[in-house]
Amino acid sequence: MAERKTTIGIETKKEDNISEWYTQVMQKADLADYTSVSGCLVFKPRSYAIWETIVAQTDLRFKQAGIQNAYFPLFIPESLFQKEAAHVEGFSPEVAWVTHAGDTKLNERLAVRPTSETIMYESYSKWIRSWRDLPLRLNQWCNVVRWEFKHPVPFLRTREFLWNEGHTAFATKKQAEDEGPEIISIYNEICENLLALPSVIGRKSEKEKFAGAEYTISLEFFLPSGKAIQGPDFHHDGQNFAKAFDIKFKDQNGNDEYAWQNTFAITTRVIGIMIMMHGDNKGLVLPPFVAPTQIGIVPILGKGDDVLAKAKEIEESLRSAYKVQLDEREEYSPGYKFNEMELQGVPLRIEIGPKDLAANSVVLVRRDTGEKTTVALDKLASTIEEELTAMHHRLFEKAKTFLEENIVSVDNYDEFKKAIADKKLVKARYCNDKTSDCEEIIKADTVGAKPLNIPEQEPSDGVCVHCGKPAKEYAYFGKAY
Amino acid sequence: MAERKTTIGIETKKEDNISEWYTQVMQKADLADYTSVSGCLVFKPRSYAIWETIVAQTDLRFKQAGIQNAYFPLFIPESLFQKEAAHVEGFSPEVAWVTHAGDTKLNERLAVRPTSETIMYESYSKWIRSWRDLPLRLNQWCNVVRWEFKHPVPFLRTREFLWNEGHTAFATKKQAEDEGPEIISIYNEICENLLALPSVIGRKSEKEKFAGAEYTISLEFFLPSGKAIQGPDFHHDGQNFAKAFDIKFKDQNGNDEYAWQNTFAITTRVIGIMIMMHGDNKGLVLPPFVAPTQIGIVPILGKGDDVLAKAKEIEESLRSAYKVQLDEREEYSPGYKFNEMELQGVPLRIEIGPKDLAANSVVLVRRDTGEKTTVALDKLASTIEEELTAMHHRLFEKAKTFLEENIVSVDNYDEFKKAIADKKLVKARYCNDKTSDCEEIIKADTVGAKPLNIPEQEPSDGVCVHCGKPAKEYAYFGKAY
Repeated sequence: MAERKTTIGIETKKEDNISEWYTQVMQKADLADYTSVSGCLVFKPRSYAIWETIVAQTDLRFKQAGIQNAYFPLFIPESLFQKEAAHVEGFSPEVAWVTHAGDTKLNERLAVRPTSETIMYESYSKWIRSWRDLPLRLNQWCNVVRWEFKHPVPFLRTREFLWNEGHTAFATKKQAEDEGPEIISIYNEICENLLALPSVIGRKSEKEKFAGAEYTISLEFFLPSGKAIQGPDFHHDGQNFAKAFDIKFKDQNGNDEYAWQNTFAITTRVIGIMIMMHGDNKGLVLPPFVAPTQIGIVPILGKGDDVLAKAKEIEESLRSAYKVQLDEREEYSPGYKFNEMELQGVPLRIEIGPKDLAANSVVLVRRDTGEKTTVALDKLASTIEEELTAMHHRLFEKAKTFLEENIVSVDNYDEFKKAIADKKLVKARYCNDKTSDCEEIIKADTVGAKPLNIPEQEPSDGVCVHCGKPAKEYAYFGKAY
Repeated sequence: MAERKTTIGIETKKEDNISEWYTQVMQKADLADYTSVSGCLVFKPRSYAIWETIVAQTDLRFKQAGIQNAYFPLFIPESLFQKEAAHVEGFSPEVAWVTHAGDTKLNERLAVRPTSETIMYESYSKWIRSWRDLPLRLNQWCNVVRWEFKHPVPFLRTREFLWNEGHTAFATKKQAEDEGPEIISIYNEICENLLALPSVIGRKSEKEKFAGAEYTISLEFFLPSGKAIQGPDFHHDGQNFAKAFDIKFKDQNGNDEYAWQNTFAITTRVIGIMIMMHGDNKGLVLPPFVAPTQIGIVPILGKGDDVLAKAKEIEESLRSAYKVQLDEREEYSPGYKFNEMELQGVPLRIEIGPKDLAANSVVLVRRDTGEKTTVALDKLASTIEEELTAMHHRLFEKAKTFLEENIVSVDNYDEFKKAIADKKLVKARYCNDKTSDCEEIIKADTVGAKPLNIPEQEPSDGVCVHCGKPAKEYAYFGKAY
């Protein structure tokens, strides 16, 4: 793509038009591209490497927790897919159906998995016979397809996406529910410590919970676009699926019991959240611990000097601890390389020219602040370690301040509507009554706002911001992707 | 599944009925299970962990070679799928077609990828403009679907399987072709050093090569069932796809040229090859470097002794270097645990009882030979290292001897047919003429034998074993899965 790179910069300001800015960053920072399959992306190496790090770090924690990986079929026979009523109702409208193989019409249509409860639990019902077979804690990393007809947004809402889906079964409700905080804490650690993304954590409302779940716990993110978006989540399914799929076991007294189940997921969506949260008008800003290139080295060549040799030496010395990239292409100028590394969000840039070489130092540039520091070579390794950590913390603190400054607590419906119109994350008392039509009316009144989640351990003794009926809890509301 | 484990052993001898033996090993060693999707397996944790190791080791080598990972959509629009004539002809009969999303009929059918050339090369044609954009060496690890109507065999032939697909583009034919030995050597290293699987390596015949390729290089394995099976392969596609997808670049002189391309793959099939090659009448035998549990520890408990504490201490001391599993379940006897570990192919078993504890030693049992050795605790770590390496080499050498002993070189068609009837891997001179019908006749005469591949650098100056026309090369023939 070299020839098109004469105008490599982002041509729209993030504050002016964030969707256009986002699209340009995605393409110009070489993260992803559109394809001729509507709503489906190519993950190019620079975004796929981010996903690989998220997978590796999450998977490590799952394995430490005793969760094992497996792989179940992509296809789900229609009859199996329809076994749990709420589940099929929730997913049917967006299922991609395989009807033919070659020229042969299949006897039964096959759903391309939008999620794998139904195909996995058929096996669980065969495998789980005794209390000795529990807990069964399996996970798979795979692709899923949800053919939504809403407007697709790269990473944030794509018709095919990548995720983990954990599916666990326990002998008791308590054991199952205890898994919730464990999993949410893993996801939160990935979001905070890897992606520098703070969130609000809580239960989804009765109407927004997962199709088939007793309750859903989610991480919700609030983006500079003024919209919220759901991140990783955990569903406690009670015995709903166990009853639909006959997942029964003999307990230690010889009684037949249904298993208690959970599911949980983190998806490629978090990549989009990260891009939108941290990026700036120069392009992508990548949190250092997830960046596919953590340190870029640009040699500034003079005549007859040994700059390139020194640059290679530095690359070599850093390679075992960091992801380093020395840009020694001769057909591009140093200025071009600086711009490209900024566009691609490389956290730290090392510039080294003849004068630096003579002074036994380099110039170190931070992507997020643009700060340039001259660093003596013998201090380089320790300075890099400090700067990467400092950059991560600054990104996280900045995002956290942004989140906190945008939360508005309101006490009545007029304030509520104004805060939503102001693109805020609104905290209000909420009835969370399945039989009320509060959610529908709020959505209509505000052109799309909805309850995002309900923070736990924050009881309310007031009344619902909309209907005035008793509200035992608060909810976060906002417009969402 | 505890209750069914009262008869955990394999009930059929490998030498009596290898397909039945294979099915039992797959299920009883907890590797995989059937599903209600015909021809599609569940990879249970014990087989998926093997795949994870194969992926990790292969991926490491790809990355060292400069190949980057990406991810392209699962679906391929029909019009795109049809762009390369030989390719569409080869794959169409086994494509699973998505025709509907929810209740909506799609405007265009979508193929579930049987392989991703067509969806990837549409992007390549956008991305590759200049010699500076080359080489482009991308890979993805993903699932693919080939709805074959042949009899499915777990791992060996499943309608959905997991694989890597490397797709690379180069500026010159030479650069592209030089990638062949590099990739084949990576695959061979994985097969030999990880899976203890020797193979014969060579080019596929003109009729057996990949749909769309100029030539295909394959690793072919010969199994104790007397059948051969193709393993990982590499395809040099010349400019076939570049022309079909308009993948052109300006070279350094400003001329437009088509790119030269390759593709390559290793699939979950190798797990099946490994099972069938090394297993015995006690069950699975796993090569030590790919085994999900390398060392099993069984405490043999007496009264008032500290066996379990010592067993935990041993587990702890080995954990950083090996995959260790201490079986401390109280509801199963040591004998049951020995059988289960043998069934699951655990390479080394440590037995420790009160007498061993008193003598400061343990009993070490090798899965492949059944040899029991008493090992002093202070020699345990070094003995384990030696035994794991020795076991790998023994499995490989045994498999290699088996392969070599089954290769029969023949000079005429009667010998040829007899050797095929004797279930041998037959080496014979072969015309490899696209216009001749040798392959069809051989297949008919022998009920299914075909040329597997053609070893390189073994010129022949004789005549084809079937048609008598000049043969410049030898080929390996056999019946194949």
